[in-house]
Amino acid sequence: MAFDIAGVPGFAYGGDYSAEQWPEEVWADDVRLMKAAGVNLVTVGVFAWAMLETAPGRYEFGWLDRLMDQLAAHGVAVDLATATASPPPWFSHANPDSLPVEADGNRLWYGSRQTFCPSSPAYRSAAGALVEELANRYAGHPALAMWHVNNEYGCHVARCWCDTSAAAFRSWLVRKYTTLDALNTAWGTAFWSQRYTAWDQVIPPRRTPSFPNPTQLLDFYRFSSDELLACFRAERDAIRRHSTGIPITTNFLLDRWGVDFWSWAGEVDLVSMDHYLLGESEDPYAGLAFVADLARSLAGGRPWALMEHATSAVNWQPRNLAKPPGQLRRDSLGHVARGADAVLYFQWRASRAGAEKWHSGMVPHAGTETKVWREVVGLGADLAGLSEVAGSEVVVDAAILLDWASIWAQAHPSQPSVDLDPVRITEQWHAALRAATVTCDFAPPGGDLARYRLILVPALHLVSDADAANLVSYVDGGGTVLIGPYSGVVDEHDHIRLNGYGVWSDLLGVRVEEFFPLPDGRRVALSDGTSGRVWTELATAKTADVLVTYADGPLAGAPALTRRGTAYYLTTHLDDAALRVLLERIARAAGVEPVLCDPPRWVEAVKRRHADGREWTFVANDGEVPVDVLGTVLNPGALTISTGFAARSDSA
Amino acid sequence: MAFDIAGVPGFAYGGDYSAEQWPEEVWADDVRLMKAAGVNLVTVGVFAWAMLETAPGRYEFGWLDRLMDQLAAHGVAVDLATATASPPPWFSHANPDSLPVEADGNRLWYGSRQTFCPSSPAYRSAAGALVEELANRYAGHPALAMWHVNNEYGCHVARCWCDTSAAAFRSWLVRKYTTLDALNTAWGTAFWSQRYTAWDQVIPPRRTPSFPNPTQLLDFYRFSSDELLACFRAERDAIRRHSTGIPITTNFLLDRWGVDFWSWAGEVDLVSMDHYLLGESEDPYAGLAFVADLARSLAGGRPWALMEHATSAVNWQPRNLAKPPGQLRRDSLGHVARGADAVLYFQWRASRAGAEKWHSGMVPHAGTETKVWREVVGLGADLAGLSEVAGSEVVVDAAILLDWASIWAQAHPSQPSVDLDPVRITEQWHAALRAATVTCDFAPPGGDLARYRLILVPALHLVSDADAANLVSYVDGGGTVLIGPYSGVVDEHDHIRLNGYGVWSDLLGVRVEEFFPLPDGRRVALSDGTSGRVWTELATAKTADVLVTYADGPLAGAPALTRRGTAYYLTTHLDDAALRVLLERIARAAGVEPVLCDPPRWVEAVKRRHADGREWTFVANDGEVPVDVLGTVLNPGALTISTGFAARSDSA
Amino acid sequence: MAFDIAGVPGFAYGGDYSAEQWPEEVWADDVRLMKAAGVNLVTVGVFAWAMLETAPGRYEFGWLDRLMDQLAAHGVAVDLATATASPPPWFSHANPDSLPVEADGNRLWYGSRQTFCPSSPAYRSAAGALVEELANRYAGHPALAMWHVNNEYGCHVARCWCDTSAAAFRSWLVRKYTTLDALNTAWGTAFWSQRYTAWDQVIPPRRTPSFPNPTQLLDFYRFSSDELLACFRAERDAIRRHSTGIPITTNFLLDRWGVDFWSWAGEVDLVSMDHYLLGESEDPYAGLAFVADLARSLAGGRPWALMEHATSAVNWQPRNLAKPPGQLRRDSLGHVARGADAVLYFQWRASRAGAEKWHSGMVPHAGTETKVWREVVGLGADLAGLSEVAGSEVVVDAAILLDWASIWAQAHPSQPSVDLDPVRITEQWHAALRAATVTCDFAPPGGDLARYRLILVPALHLVSDADAANLVSYVDGGGTVLIGPYSGVVDEHDHIRLNGYGVWSDLLGVRVEEFFPLPDGRRVALSDGTSGRVWTELATAKTADVLVTYADGPLAGAPALTRRGTAYYLTTHLDDAALRVLLERIARAAGVEPVLCDPPRWVEAVKRRHADGREWTFVANDGEVPVDVLGTVLNPGALTISTGFAARSDSA
Repeated sequence: MAFDIAGVPGFAYGGDYSAEQWPEEVWADDVRLMKAAGVNLVTVGVFAWAMLETAPGRYEFGWLDRLMDQLAAHGVAVDLATATASPPPWFSHANPDSLPVEADGNRLWYGSRQTFCPSSPAYRSAAGALVEELANRYAGHPALAMWHVNNEYGCHVARCWCDTSAAAFRSWLVRKYTTLDALNTAWGTAFWSQRYTAWDQVIPPRRTPSFPNPTQLLDFYRFSSDELLACFRAERDAIRRHSTGIPITTNFLLDRWGVDFWSWAGEVDLVSMDHYLLGESEDPYAGLAFVADLARSLAGGRPWALMEHATSAVNWQPRNLAKPPGQLRRDSLGHVARGADAVLYFQWRASRAGAEKWHSGMVPHAGTETKVWREVVGLGADLAGLSEVAGSEVVVDAAILLDWASIWAQAHPSQPSVDLDPVRITEQWHAALRAATVTCDFAPPGGDLARYRLILVPALHLVSDADAANLVSYVDGGGTVLIGPYSGVVDEHDHIRLNGYGVWSDLLGVRVEEFFPLPDGRRVALSDGTSGRVWTELATAKTADVLVTYADGPLAGAPALTRRGTAYYLTTHLDDAALRVLLERIARAAGVEPVLCDPPRWVEAVKRRHADGREWTFVANDGEVPVDVLGTVLNPGALTISTGFAARSDSA
Repeated sequence: MAFDIAGVPGFAYGGDYSAEQWPEEVWADDVRLMKAAGVNLVTVGVFAWAMLETAPGRYEFGWLDRLMDQLAAHGVAVDLATATASPPPWFSHANPDSLPVEADGNRLWYGSRQTFCPSSPAYRSAAGALVEELANRYAGHPALAMWHVNNEYGCHVARCWCDTSAAAFRSWLVRKYTTLDALNTAWGTAFWSQRYTAWDQVIPPRRTPSFPNPTQLLDFYRFSSDELLACFRAERDAIRRHSTGIPITTNFLLDRWGVDFWSWAGEVDLVSMDHYLLGESEDPYAGLAFVADLARSLAGGRPWALMEHATSAVNWQPRNLAKPPGQLRRDSLGHVARGADAVLYFQWRASRAGAEKWHSGMVPHAGTETKVWREVVGLGADLAGLSEVAGSEVVVDAAILLDWASIWAQAHPSQPSVDLDPVRITEQWHAALRAATVTCDFAPPGGDLARYRLILVPALHLVSDADAANLVSYVDGGGTVLIGPYSGVVDEHDHIRLNGYGVWSDLLGVRVEEFFPLPDGRRVALSDGTSGRVWTELATAKTADVLVTYADGPLAGAPALTRRGTAYYLTTHLDDAALRVLLERIARAAGVEPVLCDPPRWVEAVKRRHADGREWTFVANDGEVPVDVLGTVLNPGALTISTGFAARSDSA
Repeated sequence: MAFDIAGVPGFAYGGDYSAEQWPEEVWADDVRLMKAAGVNLVTVGVFAWAMLETAPGRYEFGWLDRLMDQLAAHGVAVDLATATASPPPWFSHANPDSLPVEADGNRLWYGSRQTFCPSSPAYRSAAGALVEELANRYAGHPALAMWHVNNEYGCHVARCWCDTSAAAFRSWLVRKYTTLDALNTAWGTAFWSQRYTAWDQVIPPRRTPSFPNPTQLLDFYRFSSDELLACFRAERDAIRRHSTGIPITTNFLLDRWGVDFWSWAGEVDLVSMDHYLLGESEDPYAGLAFVADLARSLAGGRPWALMEHATSAVNWQPRNLAKPPGQLRRDSLGHVARGADAVLYFQWRASRAGAEKWHSGMVPHAGTETKVWREVVGLGADLAGLSEVAGSEVVVDAAILLDWASIWAQAHPSQPSVDLDPVRITEQWHAALRAATVTCDFAPPGGDLARYRLILVPALHLVSDADAANLVSYVDGGGTVLIGPYSGVVDEHDHIRLNGYGVWSDLLGVRVEEFFPLPDGRRVALSDGTSGRVWTELATAKTADVLVTYADGPLAGAPALTRRGTAYYLTTHLDDAALRVLLERIARAAGVEPVLCDPPRWVEAVKRRHADGREWTFVANDGEVPVDVLGTVLNPGALTISTGFAARSDSA
């Protein structure tokens, strides 16, 4: 799979074009402005089902024909959506069973979007018919450059607890376990008298008086991800029956955690994703870097498409902060730095009405005499100037192991500590590497790790024996690993590994005896002067060197950080600064070099490189004071791109 | 419509008399105590349906006959309730479909009160039959002085999402839009694929996976207010078929915001309302003044009735604070100051049992050897002494524009900032005027504004073109206006006005380009040394003078306060103190004079005046230290009334 | 009823043995380890229904036969559970109406535990049949030492609002009130038009628009407790039909408040209860002491069984803190000090899977080379060494009145102050006595009080006339009482006592006129230099001495603490330190002597004594520094037991 949006050279630039919201006389103006801004790709039809099919089987493609023709005529390529993300009222009204049901048994109604049960046969059938029509009609259209299936799967309805879903869940379980005995063993139903004696007794984890069965919950999360994936596959396959050579994608929403994107990544022709800055977070760009690195990892290191982001405010945060001057460029090029070769916004023209009318657009409500429009035009020019960068890959030597099933296992409401959030911890480790200007991938536990010099395992609670062995092989082959606490503790059925919690005991040379989560906000002193937070463990070093111990509390003297060869283990969690120091030390020992030596706080630096050696270093200053980087002064909010710079020759 | 409670001269004084809760032998004692306290009006029967109709069509009026006769015999007039506010168990049990349903689909059961769907035909029919019987029987009773329809419409159930309500909603929409095309346009259903193709697809905004359609929500709020109003009208009209010359009212609950009282005000013969101090709020009297001014405004400036308040604690606040000595008088006369000519409590005798048994009464649980009873008797004497004041009007030169639909539009869960609460902002502006002893009305955006010297528009987000033009005419006619940010931005369908958000751009001489809500708790410095909070805007002065600019942040240098002739615009919100200074300055410029010049903090002053020039100034000290006002010392908690005082001759 | 676990001498020691979760080959190892630890009693089968009955009427007792035989062979006695606490999936699937329904109308599903409506005929019938089979089969088994009915009744589902429960509620009400008139009077249905005219109109207090009827709510709570008790009785009686001489218990969960354990205590042969330390609370042992004293009180002062506690962390707290070294012993012996003669854990072997897999066990996940196992063995040895203590009683001279119905009445959502939580207040008073090393019982308001020198009434809001008179008789007989505010204010129907709120007015010589709850966090100064919190009252001393008055606020000068003979009354609540001083003073005056004179902070001391005079004093140091007690130094976390010590000869 290569990054190839049919007919779009260099960077793709544009956004969602909801033309159906505007009178056709506006379209001409739209095309004129698109050309002025350098837009070469627009997404069409994402929420147009009700306009394309006005009654069962009654299709109205006239307006779309005219729109596609007009865009083709002006050289704007189209990412054509299948329009299935929001079933029309006539559909939901005729098929009330297709509406999703929550765990408490209450149905969700139409009136917003994504109002479908992923397992609904009526929905799948109606969606499939529409896609078939679209693919057949537009497969050969000159404007067509990409297919866009559905939209943000799982954004609002990642799971459904209705009876239809229950039946589909049982089918999925039959396929997985074959026998009820196997299910009973996997789910540990000997506990709390939960043994199933017939398949039809098995239900989704609906609201129940106490903690649900953890493996039932975990399997239901897996099932739900697979059901949405089946929806995607059905649409993709329908397209492929009519359309060849045009890449098919769906826009991943990576900062929700309802869908296992490792299993999705191989199913799309091209990875695309949506990302919105969290304006009020302390460091919005940390979130950007996280999902951009994840998108690249899902794309196997190759370029990917930023399908949606915002030119300024969004509409769904508590306070939707507008972007100050320059932030639009910083945001967009931050994605480019991490491998995006397409930069698209939601949406082209800000809506006048509807639930997202306060979401910014490329053409704002106030028109083109605006800060936003000027910056949109400026970014178009920037991207045109950078076209040589397109197709290059990001330079990476380290990876963080990440697994959705493991995250889901820890979402069970009966865990040792509510503070031990695997996503937050993974984000913290990623941010610490970023602060050190060490760019990293994410990798699945069973993936090919050999191409990395350093693997971090911040929070891989659940891991199968095979995947655990994969990591051991990696270290045996010379790799370096740092494992965080509470990792490898349960197998793929969420069963605890007995006799020391240690799938990696031998690798690490450490036996863990008992977990000692810390009270809310409490710290524990460590022997190196730093402190542990959230979590501690009563462990014994068997064949490992103890590098740091606890200096107070009930575990005083017990190991906090150990090392056996190139395998490190932390039994606690560190503050950001201490974590960064530790990761820098281990990275250096592993031969991983940062983009910048000793970078100042709030500076981000990432490198892209072509196979032929041409490379670009993207450096941004996200702080509030100017910084001196690579001999030049970088102002707050600024992002600069250097060509051919060699970080290694830099003096500290 | 004149304020005229049949047969009650001067001030009406009394309370809800739930005689059905007590043995009839208590009634004689009640009447004796009423006379002792100067009570001349009691409300009877508010929650007596179950006692008046014990099975469908089986009426038992004997006890009410005896009660009315006894009251008439002793000269206590009766405000007779229609008793429809709480359907009896036999009714709800026989008509389960009459029970309201919430947005999540769950039904609410009987066992408290107001357990009816406003659109229920069964409820309307049963209520109508009861009212017909009551009106027929008591129309000519000598005790009858007023009709009291239902009770606090919308207090608990302002909206219902059941299928009956859905059908009624569709009928309302057909009446409003005539065609589905018009509805689709108004609701902006081109967004998110929500186009309706048949009327029966349209439903109330039930729980849905993402943000509901904003105009659907807004129209549902409008519909719901109208449905309750239809309930009121049906009862009123039934009464009128039998009873003439007796005013009909219903007690408005003005600090909920579920019902559009502008549309209700013209339907009652006499405006009455309930108000309860929020004991733990920083300034409970600010809330009192707000709703009292609103009640007077709904009454067109004429006297109104305080139908319910409390002699001491209520039962429904987290901590139900008792009133310290003197507060009963301060509270009640505070309403009189702002135009109340009737002062009634909930309730005459505190209940022994039931959900409100901890609500205070005029006769407390502990009997008449109590602080409360002594103050109840004292207030009766006060009111008798003030009888000359009754019928006078409050002196007002300024008004605040207020609109329920605009408030509802901002209640949509997808707005630029959760901090921009239009009610809180309106309260802040009202409180700032009150602190300056400038009494103000509230006015509907389309109302007659010519009688005011100053109009404030703190938070009128939604306004129709016609209503916007009404304000322009007002300024053209010499009026002064101050408009707050985010005002006039959407039309009556909640569609955004394009090209600068400005229905008042020309009036103000300002073009707004983009909204910059502030992060949580953040301030921005202004050029005059004050600071902005919650909200800022990127605006340009076209034909306006810039009076204040932003002094830091991304909008540094942009206008914060502008003036074009007598039209002022604020692009941010101010602290209380700065807002008071600004409003005082503009009021002075507009020729609006305060009751007191330079009043001390925590002093309230309001003036009532007869057409013949007799006037009274009510001055209260709500602070914790004595203050010197008008040459006399006013102790904390005290309220004094001066006759014939001329504020204008006062030296500062 | 004597404490007598058949065939177990001295202390019983052990835990829940969920053998069905492990392969049978593990059992031999289990028995070996049990002997090593001194375990002599295990609970078997609590959650084994699905393993014992695999389809309706198909029983599989083979595995249980083998298990019981093996335990008998090694001298480990069995507390055999009836296994009815968690119906199997086949049952719930076949009987969906047996699933509980919440107040909002939503059903709770199976998939966790306790998934049954207490009134379900299907559940009761299936449970009864299983119990009959078990009792018949194992009545004469040599391992059998005790019967364990169900498990933690009411832990998750104390109440059900389904139609079946509604019918059962009506039957219960018919039995209680006989006539609807009586119910209408008791419930005060003259308020809010709630009069019932037919029994079938009466329903549980389901979700309703405003505050539910308080007496309906109170009766529903009483009914729900009785329904669960009926479940218990049915199982107990089924056992008794087959098994004689073996005590029958069920494990009470005393820190939930859903079930009225006074009414349960007389129904069990032996009181047992579960207790788990709240690791993050400021003083976890205060909670332990509270429920241990309550368990002993329910047992009539005789020894009781600690059926469950934890060797280290539990799994259901936000942060499940592991026990530092020594805390296991402190926790367990803390129960022994207060009368426990059986010390059992949940559970023997920590689970590998299921919702409670992170709950610690006697045999931890990490095996026997662990802190936990070493301490488990150590405690077994401790208990063996203390066997002489078994059967002795705790020395007690004071009691606190406690009543579930009173607590429930205050749970109505319309009370004067949310801060006035009767459980928190009772805990505070208990903790103050404990800090003074005065051990106390809890007593029901109508119980035999003559054996105590001091009665405390911290928060008895609801009390019947008869129970109120019981307290008066106690004082008339020479007893001392301290009553807290808001006590005795309502009768058993939650009707307010008029004319001064005073069922104890004459006893106390005080008339209360009005309640003045304090604003959030506010204090009021008292004349003795301390301060009142949460609550104040406007009261008048009629025949009482005023010991302390309010020193500021609206009630300045009014009584805060009064005394009439040996009857004291507080009109406010005190800080912990002031409360302790007051209770020490009154206790001393009443002739109640503490175990230690002037004990240091964080020291607990309790005395057990045999009828023949042998006695043991348990002293623990729960602080963070060593303390000097009885001439010896006690380290933090330590608990020591002195024999034959005479506290009374101690110098202060």
